[in-house]
Amino acid sequence: MSLPEQSEVSAEVKATIAVPTKGSTILTGDRPTGPLHLGHFVGSLRNRVAYQHDYKQFIMLADAQALTDNMDDTNKVHRNVVEVALDYLAVGIDPTKSTILIQSQIPELAELTFYYLNLVTVARLERNPTVKTEIALRGFERDIPAGFLTYPASQAADISAFKAAIVPVGEDQIPMIEQTNEIVRRFNRLAQKDILVECKALVPEIGRLPGTDGKAKMSKSLGNTINLGATAAEITAAVKKVYTDPLHLRVEDPGHLEGNVAFIYLDAFDPEKDKLEEMKAHYVRGGLGDSIVKKRLELVLQEMLAPIRARREELAQDKGYIMQMLKEGTSRAREVAARTTDEVKAALGLSYF
Amino acid sequence: MSLPEQSEVSAEVKATIAVPTKGSTILTGDRPTGPLHLGHFVGSLRNRVAYQHDYKQFIMLADAQALTDNMDDTNKVHRNVVEVALDYLAVGIDPTKSTILIQSQIPELAELTFYYLNLVTVARLERNPTVKTEIALRGFERDIPAGFLTYPASQAADISAFKAAIVPVGEDQIPMIEQTNEIVRRFNRLAQKDILVECKALVPEIGRLPGTDGKAKMSKSLGNTINLGATAAEITAAVKKVYTDPLHLRVEDPGHLEGNVAFIYLDAFDPEKDKLEEMKAHYVRGGLGDSIVKKRLELVLQEMLAPIRARREELAQDKGYIMQMLKEGTSRAREVAARTTDEVKAALGLSYF
Repeated sequence: MSLPEQSEVSAEVKATIAVPTKGSTILTGDRPTGPLHLGHFVGSLRNRVAYQHDYKQFIMLADAQALTDNMDDTNKVHRNVVEVALDYLAVGIDPTKSTILIQSQIPELAELTFYYLNLVTVARLERNPTVKTEIALRGFERDIPAGFLTYPASQAADISAFKAAIVPVGEDQIPMIEQTNEIVRRFNRLAQKDILVECKALVPEIGRLPGTDGKAKMSKSLGNTINLGATAAEITAAVKKVYTDPLHLRVEDPGHLEGNVAFIYLDAFDPEKDKLEEMKAHYVRGGLGDSIVKKRLELVLQEMLAPIRARREELAQDKGYIMQMLKEGTSRAREVAARTTDEVKAALGLSYF
Repeated sequence: MSLPEQSEVSAEVKATIAVPTKGSTILTGDRPTGPLHLGHFVGSLRNRVAYQHDYKQFIMLADAQALTDNMDDTNKVHRNVVEVALDYLAVGIDPTKSTILIQSQIPELAELTFYYLNLVTVARLERNPTVKTEIALRGFERDIPAGFLTYPASQAADISAFKAAIVPVGEDQIPMIEQTNEIVRRFNRLAQKDILVECKALVPEIGRLPGTDGKAKMSKSLGNTINLGATAAEITAAVKKVYTDPLHLRVEDPGHLEGNVAFIYLDAFDPEKDKLEEMKAHYVRGGLGDSIVKKRLELVLQEMLAPIRARREELAQDKGYIMQMLKEGTSRAREVAARTTDEVKAALGLSYF
């Protein structure tokens, strides 16, 4: 099995865009804090491979952003910039079609953040539900780093620097998009000119993939991921531990599909949909053992990940190529961001020479 | 009367520096929101003219910072960058000895601010007494622009970008210096290397000059200033309104010196100290009318400001020269800030190419 058909993915996703104009600019990206896994593949990477044909796609390695809560392990962020770039190319993101950029190497993004901080109040930042949730999740309370509270201004800078009209995000990130648009509108009003562009959230229909242990989120720190670069043995081991139906004790018992990670993964990755439906029916009425289901899942994942892993290993041999690719993408992206920043600063009366 | 003797000013001020090493770097500057006045002259400009001989002095036109509460009047900030630069040169700041720079034209200052926001908590920023006071003064409460709360991180960026060891500030600004040093120490600890430099506040012995109306602060918005570029007629009119002793009704009454703006200004500007002491004694014992005191004050101010005004008017004829001077100073300063930023980013693992 190869990568999913592009038409399949894009049809699914395009439905959620209000006005999906070909040629629109998309900004997307990742915080490079670890290698990417199946959750990223379903939630974003697959879509990006499809988008790059029809859209002007910028993919940001948000290393500066990742520092917000990784100041004590900056090496991790640096190292993972390259790892994530390898993941991108391995799944089929084409650096001649998509612009892959490193956030920290575009100082204009920090400059825009600086000015946008004047366009949003502390009270408004504190009300941002995404920020609120993350603060609760990380147990920060009042002792959050300021960079964490001001993150929405930084995100507004990233999006607006490229005049992105479309931002693929999970549903929980929609308040961030609203916050960006508030800043954009406020700035345009001040400038008395539509310099910045409002953006739309693009929420993929397939939601978040659960962890192998059945927890809602697949996350490296929970140890419940399957990385895109996983070895065959790692895939085997991970599938063995995949959470199924705890009430399905004997083969002949009827099984449940809800929360059954083996079937959720098969739904996401098995290309043979008809056979999968038969298998589900069999499982529900009883008589189908977990071991058979897992065997199928392992086959599907091994076939899907083998070419990705092979491509990844090959690319990893040539770090010079990866760095050159990142340099070129960042340089192309910087030109765009610099143009926007010049416009913003001119509107603020900050042009002199 | 010309500018005050340099030896006089620096002796006075040097006493408050712990270790005033010749050749140390000073960062100072102004928010360009209006023309400079006598208060600036006493509180900072006079000292800068002295410092530039012994120190490596950077003088920042903080236009980006001024936007924090001037987003609705960005033209004002732009215009006053040139006005304040004229004030600098008119009082004797020598652009070949001091480096005059425009903050917004050095993107590295925004970059450093961005990273420093990860080194300070929201709670710590909110506790900053300078920020607290300003918030109370401006009636912002919770609806302060985020840029206002994060101002200490920006100031830390400005100071540390130039590795300034000395920052001349009013006593009320000392918490800002402490905040900068906290960020500097935290960063150096993370970097495991003393990349950034801690700074010392330099508080001038002559404190703040009161307004012509006797109010503690001379401020354009209170209409109680005498600008450095004031015309002879403006000086005459301002001196006429200078607040003296409201109990000194008849010439023969004993007069009071406390809070008497005429004498406070004479103390600050009259070069003939002995005559001034005689005059004060006469006033206190009675028999010296306010009109005589004001006549002396007017003479002193007219003589002091006439050459400054003349030089200012001459310089204002050649805007090309002013812009070239600003461009060169900013470019020299940017090299220094870029070097520091490279070091900071390298320590954070943000060097790739």
